[in-house]
Amino acid sequence: MSSVSASWLDEVKWDDKGLVTAIAQDAASGRVLMVAWMNRESLQLTADTGIAHYWSRSRRKLWKKGEESGHLQTVRELRLDCDGDVIVMQIEQIGGIACHTGRESCFYRRFENGGWTTVDAVLKDPRAIYHP
Amino acid sequence: MSSVSASWLDEVKWDDKGLVTAIAQDAASGRVLMVAWMNRESLQLTADTGIAHYWSRSRRKLWKKGEESGHLQTVRELRLDCDGDVIVMQIEQIGGIACHTGRESCFYRRFENGGWTTVDAVLKDPRAIYHP
Repeated sequence: MSSVSASWLDEVKWDDKGLVTAIAQDAASGRVLMVAWMNRESLQLTADTGIAHYWSRSRRKLWKKGEESGHLQTVRELRLDCDGDVIVMQIEQIGGIACHTGRESCFYRRFENGGWTTVDAVLKDPRAIYHP
Repeated sequence: MSSVSASWLDEVKWDDKGLVTAIAQDAASGRVLMVAWMNRESLQLTADTGIAHYWSRSRRKLWKKGEESGHLQTVRELRLDCDGDVIVMQIEQIGGIACHTGRESCFYRRFENGGWTTVDAVLKDPRAIYHP
């Protein structure tokens, strides 16, 4: 319990649900791969283990990214922004796929000609990722 | 009004306050410069003008980034994530300073040895930016 009361965690400006926005950026390419949420426990675990942990708002549980798919994220660096409510992680994405759709990044839709166009390929069928 | 009811705006999953998270990433370096919020009007204006507009939660008003400092953001690309609640913009940061502290990026604190350490220099005194 002592580590969970660490002062560096108190410098994070948790929102009214106790969460902070976390951005996972590919340490090599700089590409933003995904954005999710962390609570205090998941940020602590991320720092302690060097593996990205989030809080799943839909499942309402701690979420070790890749626990099912094997697509873990190794964390190289954590940064906090000026007002303390967003974290950017430099990560290595194991398997090269961050998105549940089987794409490298969740940001595969680009605004073009007045609409969102899917511009990135699916690298692996999600059925093969989650129920191999 | 017709443009504000455009269907591409309906594909964004606005939160219960009518906002979406917007990440500004330097188009050249890939660095994440800042994260802020957009409402429907600010996203529409961003797409229409090619200049980043946000919604200021603290001031509760439309916020054309750089309107006071001159540090406008020219938008090269807009992307939406898989669940539609985060936007990543590739931008050119006029003046090279995105943060109100006078730094290039808001993410100037790095987690080191159990604490957040300021690792980026102030490029310009904020007093010279906002009250020149």
